[in-house]
Amino acid sequence: MIRSRRINRNIGWLVVLLLLVNKTHADDGYRLWLKYDLIKDVAKREEYARSFQFIAVSNQSPILMNAAQELQVGLQGLLGKSVPIITDLGKKTGGVYLNEHQGFSNHIKYGDEGYMMSKSGNIFILANKGVGVLYGTFALLRHIQTGQLLTKLPYNSIPKIRYRLLNHWDNTNGTIERGYAGGTLWKWYELPATVDPRYHDYARANASIGINGTVVNNVNASARFLTDEYIQKVAALANVFRDYGIRVYLSVYFPAPKTIGGLKTADPLDPDVRKWWTDKTKEIYKAIPDFGGFLVKANSEGEPGPQDYGRTHADGANMLAEALAPYDGIVMWRAFVYKADPKADRFKAAHEEFTPLDGKFDKKVIVQVKNGPIDFQPREPFSPLFGNMPKTPLSMEFQITQEYTGFATHWVYEAPIFKECLESDTYINGKGSTVASVIDGSLHKYTMTAIAGVANTGSDRNWTGNPMAQANWYAYGRLAWDHTLSSEAIANEWVKMTLTSEPKAVKTITDLMLKSREIYVDYNTPIGLSRPWSGVHFAPEPWQEKSARPDWTAIYYHRADSIGLGFDRTATGSDALAQYRPEVQKQWNNPETCPLPYLLWFHHVPWTKKLSSGRTLWNELCTRFYTGADSVKWMQQQWAQVKPAIDPEIFADVTGRLATQHTEAIWWRDSWILYLQTYSKQPIPAPFQKPDRTLDDVKRLSEIYKLR
Amino acid sequence: MIRSRRINRNIGWLVVLLLLVNKTHADDGYRLWLKYDLIKDVAKREEYARSFQFIAVSNQSPILMNAAQELQVGLQGLLGKSVPIITDLGKKTGGVYLNEHQGFSNHIKYGDEGYMMSKSGNIFILANKGVGVLYGTFALLRHIQTGQLLTKLPYNSIPKIRYRLLNHWDNTNGTIERGYAGGTLWKWYELPATVDPRYHDYARANASIGINGTVVNNVNASARFLTDEYIQKVAALANVFRDYGIRVYLSVYFPAPKTIGGLKTADPLDPDVRKWWTDKTKEIYKAIPDFGGFLVKANSEGEPGPQDYGRTHADGANMLAEALAPYDGIVMWRAFVYKADPKADRFKAAHEEFTPLDGKFDKKVIVQVKNGPIDFQPREPFSPLFGNMPKTPLSMEFQITQEYTGFATHWVYEAPIFKECLESDTYINGKGSTVASVIDGSLHKYTMTAIAGVANTGSDRNWTGNPMAQANWYAYGRLAWDHTLSSEAIANEWVKMTLTSEPKAVKTITDLMLKSREIYVDYNTPIGLSRPWSGVHFAPEPWQEKSARPDWTAIYYHRADSIGLGFDRTATGSDALAQYRPEVQKQWNNPETCPLPYLLWFHHVPWTKKLSSGRTLWNELCTRFYTGADSVKWMQQQWAQVKPAIDPEIFADVTGRLATQHTEAIWWRDSWILYLQTYSKQPIPAPFQKPDRTLDDVKRLSEIYKLR
Repeated sequence: MIRSRRINRNIGWLVVLLLLVNKTHADDGYRLWLKYDLIKDVAKREEYARSFQFIAVSNQSPILMNAAQELQVGLQGLLGKSVPIITDLGKKTGGVYLNEHQGFSNHIKYGDEGYMMSKSGNIFILANKGVGVLYGTFALLRHIQTGQLLTKLPYNSIPKIRYRLLNHWDNTNGTIERGYAGGTLWKWYELPATVDPRYHDYARANASIGINGTVVNNVNASARFLTDEYIQKVAALANVFRDYGIRVYLSVYFPAPKTIGGLKTADPLDPDVRKWWTDKTKEIYKAIPDFGGFLVKANSEGEPGPQDYGRTHADGANMLAEALAPYDGIVMWRAFVYKADPKADRFKAAHEEFTPLDGKFDKKVIVQVKNGPIDFQPREPFSPLFGNMPKTPLSMEFQITQEYTGFATHWVYEAPIFKECLESDTYINGKGSTVASVIDGSLHKYTMTAIAGVANTGSDRNWTGNPMAQANWYAYGRLAWDHTLSSEAIANEWVKMTLTSEPKAVKTITDLMLKSREIYVDYNTPIGLSRPWSGVHFAPEPWQEKSARPDWTAIYYHRADSIGLGFDRTATGSDALAQYRPEVQKQWNNPETCPLPYLLWFHHVPWTKKLSSGRTLWNELCTRFYTGADSVKWMQQQWAQVKPAIDPEIFADVTGRLATQHTEAIWWRDSWILYLQTYSKQPIPAPFQKPDRTLDDVKRLSEIYKLR
Repeated sequence: MIRSRRINRNIGWLVVLLLLVNKTHADDGYRLWLKYDLIKDVAKREEYARSFQFIAVSNQSPILMNAAQELQVGLQGLLGKSVPIITDLGKKTGGVYLNEHQGFSNHIKYGDEGYMMSKSGNIFILANKGVGVLYGTFALLRHIQTGQLLTKLPYNSIPKIRYRLLNHWDNTNGTIERGYAGGTLWKWYELPATVDPRYHDYARANASIGINGTVVNNVNASARFLTDEYIQKVAALANVFRDYGIRVYLSVYFPAPKTIGGLKTADPLDPDVRKWWTDKTKEIYKAIPDFGGFLVKANSEGEPGPQDYGRTHADGANMLAEALAPYDGIVMWRAFVYKADPKADRFKAAHEEFTPLDGKFDKKVIVQVKNGPIDFQPREPFSPLFGNMPKTPLSMEFQITQEYTGFATHWVYEAPIFKECLESDTYINGKGSTVASVIDGSLHKYTMTAIAGVANTGSDRNWTGNPMAQANWYAYGRLAWDHTLSSEAIANEWVKMTLTSEPKAVKTITDLMLKSREIYVDYNTPIGLSRPWSGVHFAPEPWQEKSARPDWTAIYYHRADSIGLGFDRTATGSDALAQYRPEVQKQWNNPETCPLPYLLWFHHVPWTKKLSSGRTLWNELCTRFYTGADSVKWMQQQWAQVKPAIDPEIFADVTGRLATQHTEAIWWRDSWILYLQTYSKQPIPAPFQKPDRTLDDVKRLSEIYKLR
């Protein structure tokens, strides 16, 4: 349906209106960063065109043909030129040669996925395997999309991490746990017979940023996925993804041998159980020969697991590894565990449960660790597990979907969250032992390296709900490939590929993106606060005292009282800090020197304590909350300035979301301030105005979001 | 993202490929029946064009400008011609004049929504109100889209029913109860600041078929919608819909005065409760001046209601009517009630509860009755309530979404379901007292008439999941406007507007549509069977014996035993038949003469009983199940023949769904046959082959769909 734009209502009488319908195409966001809109600069277009007179392929494998066709489609759009695909390069020059050449000189260095790109007569994209050529092709397109000169070639690229996955927390009923962009992309009731063309575009988008695996179902897994019915459905997806270098993985329900296998137990040491998994795995590989493996959430938040039978996580993981032994598949076992114990510190749980198991996991097992010790908060210290399991490959689990960063209405560019963790120094082997060096295997010489991002995609036409959230999917993929890229560089290329190439607008939007996360933290959880949500993690509820579990209340985390605020995790408190190396402890264990962003993660600080900023805790909190909320106003103003450079539909969409974000930022500010004030008994410091509503008012507002 | 089509893998070496990218646009179904693709016949196009040299408007009200603009967009597409909108007709000829003329000669006859269309010099669309002009404009577009001659004008049209609504069973969390096309269209977290352009297209689509109201939230209602937060969100939708003649309605949660009002009771006779509703209604009208009113599910399937306080449905409805008294809004009170009593016959419940209340409802109240006495089964007798409440306006509730007709993978064209009910004769005032004559007010001179369809729309790009299900939305709207239209005529125009104008394909697809429902009934619930589902109403489970309620089991409905099958609703059984007029009873109360489609609705029939078909019950059942499932094969073959005439993406999509439908039809057949055989002890009659699986096999398959 053509979106007929409203015509101006203020037209005078007798004016003849001739609307130019259908001329301007509104951007519905579906194309993501693969827009391939015509380059406006004719000279530049012609210059590019000289080097793209043909696309030659070294063979016609599906993956190479996908690469060639992507390039063809891209060049058609960018240059407005039909470029033929040819299968015999001969002595022709002036084109592109997509060359899959198993065993070229740098084979070992480039591996299965790396590529070389050079220019001399032709542009050459050379790789050991087709998928490397595909990655190189997308890199070449990106090169043009971001307006770079072809003289800047050659370059080459090799991924730093081997398994680069999306984790979809998608349910069988079409919902997505923590999804804010519509329902699931996977049409389970229609598969395998109906294959939505969108699966193909999903694969293209992921391949373009180097993602090579996808876990299609929620970690709170349904056993359905291990039935023959569903294996066939998943296989239909795998058939689409395969030729984009993407392997399919499944989250598994640990007691499946009981629920669908009819066994009396799911004990991982029981021979029948082991045989069931072995047979089941064989069945899966028969349907999906390149199946990637299993992701497991066990003995975590009520999900069953090996501990139900007195066994360890290693026992459970190794059983699955045994089943996978004949195949090129892996087990990703999540370390997201904590017990419902009001006396314990959830912060410490994963380290306590998993470090004793180091060295006990099968070589096919990777332990998947969330970036922080709690749960994807807007800011967390890095998980103390990183570096502390030198004999066990650890993978990183980031959350791309904005569960705790404002759903689809708050603009939070997440690359700085990811980078902050990756660049944290564990000091495990001395200075420079970054989390990234753990994850990419360089520190402990892991042979298997992996990274996972909990997807923010859904059935919304623009994939991510908030158009700006596309950047988080993009940034995750780019960092998974190369974690040394800067947040700014990634933002810059994403904006150019997705929104506009107008230099001033690129600068303004990049700047907004880079500041967005800090602004969110300021009005949401400043100075190391965490988890003030209830229910679906939407509305503020720092006053929450009751929940299904004591460690699912807000007060468990912030520990506000008449004296002060914050969770004492030093030796006088839970001593969680002891899980870090002394160098790290030194950064954080002194409240006088602990950086403010982490202060309340580790210290219970008196309200009147003067902080390094020169303000008391109370005044610093107020300053953060108020300036954070005010900064959203600034975001709105900045965004308003880029209007001429942005598609009107996307501009209007983001404008609306920023208005909601501003309203909600003030709601967050008022909720925290009014609640904490009942403990601090302090006035709102000048120049800030006290909220024009009461604590009861904001509580009432939050209550709305708890109604069914 | 351009959906790059797979190129042929079988190309020979050395062949130069030049792909024509971007030339053929795949149809993603978004445009529905408002496609406006270029008419291929140049002569025809030119003939039309002579009559469309301009679009003149009598005023520039938003609704008239929407009409003019729709026509402009439509003509641009159909004729490839930019047609100017002018505001002064003067003496010009050769164009269209959209004329809103309050009080033209036939005012009373045409009312607010009817229109006249004529041609002499210009094409005139004349109506009392802008919305009538809008409807006429869509009719004119339909006229061209279906290839009719302009010489076939004049015609005029007046809706037979005043309130023509969609009911959305959409939840606050983004899911849709019984939705099979993705999540909700309404982005509650983003509203009111972000207004998805899709809302506009939703309004256009509905206006094009005459729908003038929409209940945006589930009848299992959240009290959220009565909070100021959500009223603002709903108002933002109303602002979009208003200029398409569509009013917004809300489902209300009866105990809202307690849950959000802080009152101690929701007793409808309590003065504070009445005041709360009055104040709340005032608040709503302040935000939405043309608010349509309330829809209520009360004391139904666990939803609270007035009976919780010893009051009647009338007490509850009249309280809301009182609150609406100052405004042009109505109460739609649902009659979908039944008690969890294994001894009772659910069939009788609504009649028993509601007929004693006839005459006790306020004049602003309409009682909304489902077409059948149970719950939207593939075939039901008409509800015995129709005609039996002469003093109370009754409205029809149809279900467009395919809860019991195969979700999004079974092709069931529903117009025959709707027509079958509307044309049923209640004999209330003698022969010809059809259900339609009850609903349209002609029988009992109701001043208020209404019809509701439970929507099948969702966030899927093509709105309805199965592209063929768009026809059900369309047919519902067309019948709501004029229930005398035939199923065939509606199918024919929908196919031409949506899929193809190639005559043979139109004929083939129309034929498929008309047969589809009977085929579904044959393999799903033949001869009057009903409700063999469990859980989410997907998998067959005729063996279901246990459920949260006794009347939510399958055996409650089919009553299979060693003697026979079916629910005795004659005087020897529940005597539900006594709720109908004698003439109706006469049709159904004799098992020898009761038409087979209704037989098991009213009779417990021995397995070996010879039916009017000449076959025993068992053999007739087998014949239906087998021929039904085989007919899906026939549907596949028919569909394959229209390939050249259909967009390839839509063709592939439907092809896939038909494959799934065939698989599932056999599953239904086998489930019923194998299960009933345990009672009938009869062999599968020749020429049918017995299922190649066991009852346990099909049970196991159904179990999969009960896993979380």
